[in-house]
Amino acid sequence: MRDVSIIGIGQTRVGEHWDKSLRQLATEAILAALGEAGLERADVLYVGNMLSGKVSAQEHVAALIADFAGLRGIEAVKVEAAESSGAAALRLGYVAVASGLADTAIVCGVEKMTDAVGSATASAALAMAADSDYEALHGLSLAALNALLMRRYMHEYGVKREDFAPFTVNAHRNAAGNPCAMFPWPVTPEAFMKAPLMADPISLMDSAPLADGAAAVVLCPTDRARLFTSGAVRIIASAVATDSVAIHDRRDPLFLEAAYLSAQRAYQQAGVGPAEIDLFEVHDAFTITAALSLEACGFARRGQGVRLAQEGEIALDGRIPICTMGGLKARGHPVGATGVYQIVELVQQLRGQAGVNQVKGARLGMAQSIGGTGGTAITHILEAS
Amino acid sequence: MRDVSIIGIGQTRVGEHWDKSLRQLATEAILAALGEAGLERADVLYVGNMLSGKVSAQEHVAALIADFAGLRGIEAVKVEAAESSGAAALRLGYVAVASGLADTAIVCGVEKMTDAVGSATASAALAMAADSDYEALHGLSLAALNALLMRRYMHEYGVKREDFAPFTVNAHRNAAGNPCAMFPWPVTPEAFMKAPLMADPISLMDSAPLADGAAAVVLCPTDRARLFTSGAVRIIASAVATDSVAIHDRRDPLFLEAAYLSAQRAYQQAGVGPAEIDLFEVHDAFTITAALSLEACGFARRGQGVRLAQEGEIALDGRIPICTMGGLKARGHPVGATGVYQIVELVQQLRGQAGVNQVKGARLGMAQSIGGTGGTAITHILEAS
Repeated sequence: MRDVSIIGIGQTRVGEHWDKSLRQLATEAILAALGEAGLERADVLYVGNMLSGKVSAQEHVAALIADFAGLRGIEAVKVEAAESSGAAALRLGYVAVASGLADTAIVCGVEKMTDAVGSATASAALAMAADSDYEALHGLSLAALNALLMRRYMHEYGVKREDFAPFTVNAHRNAAGNPCAMFPWPVTPEAFMKAPLMADPISLMDSAPLADGAAAVVLCPTDRARLFTSGAVRIIASAVATDSVAIHDRRDPLFLEAAYLSAQRAYQQAGVGPAEIDLFEVHDAFTITAALSLEACGFARRGQGVRLAQEGEIALDGRIPICTMGGLKARGHPVGATGVYQIVELVQQLRGQAGVNQVKGARLGMAQSIGGTGGTAITHILEAS
Repeated sequence: MRDVSIIGIGQTRVGEHWDKSLRQLATEAILAALGEAGLERADVLYVGNMLSGKVSAQEHVAALIADFAGLRGIEAVKVEAAESSGAAALRLGYVAVASGLADTAIVCGVEKMTDAVGSATASAALAMAADSDYEALHGLSLAALNALLMRRYMHEYGVKREDFAPFTVNAHRNAAGNPCAMFPWPVTPEAFMKAPLMADPISLMDSAPLADGAAAVVLCPTDRARLFTSGAVRIIASAVATDSVAIHDRRDPLFLEAAYLSAQRAYQQAGVGPAEIDLFEVHDAFTITAALSLEACGFARRGQGVRLAQEGEIALDGRIPICTMGGLKARGHPVGATGVYQIVELVQQLRGQAGVNQVKGARLGMAQSIGGTGGTAITHILEAS
């Protein structure tokens, strides 16, 4: 297996792109990433997308996007792992280049959620990440499922709703420095508490917004990266793990076993532990998800994820900065694209190009993307070159 | 890259499985394939599926199936490339094992189409393989799109509707010898001509049926295959190519460029040409698709694909036997599973286990799976060991 680096990144602004279609968003990100790498084509294209079938009545999106991006003929397939689809596409791109199958690979995550007619449709589409027969069919949306987890967490650990506010405050503070963020403005703890409830105890301010967007990266073997760019960033770990999709089948609903497994596999591959990670792009689809992911990855003990946020350790100058460009909550969460946005942001940080959001001396960055309520978890660790 | 072999196969009967869900069908095929290989687990699972989101309101199917099949924790993602999703999953499994990432891989194709409410829904779901904005939105189903191709083919080459009958007669004849086939009974040329038209000139008898089913294979490096089985079959080529999804954007609608490209890449990788292939599992979603695929892969000159069938060269004892276990038309076409069914049948042939359908002395077998009207084509070449 060859060592793999990222040699180009591209992203669209995250938001409601009423004037752009799925293929247009993806093409914008792909051409930006290829442009950075100084390439016109690559050997293979992997597209991460979750919802285009339900929302846009369009499958076969990898071929569709390849053609529109001027890559006709290229090997291209779509990969889906619910909200972690973008990270799954990166995993495939990594394997393709590491194996020698491809010398260059494009990985693109894209989602067009505003094509869903009404929020009910978008919510139903997202619920496809849950167990359709045993959860969604009974009316459980993803927000409702995570509300069960949050309520249980509050009960088990004596935590209050307001204790989750620091996650949201931190994410919005960081989004202000990200020109691609959907909500680049600050939020106060008071505003957090006043937000309307979606599924008690989850409010709008606990929940990442529906959004459109696309992000892309270009990969090549590390020993050739200098031919393309001086800003290459190495992928030193890539790991996927799964768990029961339905919460009721898990041994312990408050422990994300797939998140734990994929983090452990990534740590092992990279030869590092959580103490050595300089920043962590966490999957904060809901504030409770951020807390559980921090715990599963070893950044906090069980029940202490929320404390980490309260103590300011997740800020840009804290022990483990998270959501450094706004996270899912404030950069926005175009689901199938999110896993690639996290990687684009890590590359910005590890290149020292994160502007006012720069994490000082960042050398090792980690991203974890989670599908459903934890049925899939995908972890990548990147290193500055 | 390591040499890769198939060490286990599994399949459910193709048909209307009203009593079984998506996860049950997939698990049945996976456990059968693992059982053949004498394995309880593998390192990675790739699931090929196209329609579960639209038809069953279920995405995240790789984690779902992994859990149900007793593989909790395993690396698992779904891959989608329209009707060639199953073949795309095999491609990923091949790369995972060839690269050294995985020592064992499970590849499963699965589709549950009878969960669609009414044939209109199934037809709309399938139309997601076409260009949603420029084709499907205007009412063009896949049958209608292929009817345009068939009509043009008849016009260009002076071919009549009845000239396509030999494809259907051959497929049904072979299905009679396949216990997993959906329609294991013969069809006469007269019955072919009497079938109701779906989209003139395409009739029910030109068209593969909607179906449920799952097929699976287990892969490992060839140098370890003997540890698991004496019936290993090598994968000596694996190639994916894409083209414009919309027909109107192609240089020549009667030439499947992706099919040509992926076949050429496969021939090059295997170091063989069409003359050396002993049997060909063709993507006969429609009779016209079979003709165009035969031509693109070099088994017939342009406009001569239909003649090949008329001259009996596609029969089990012909020059290039196709649909040897019934093909999409008569084995049935559970879309996301079909690409893996083709591989399971090739393995049966190359092991000499195809019973009354055995192609004498079969040593090299090829399968091609096509997404949409040709936007994706995936070709594999297998060799008996």
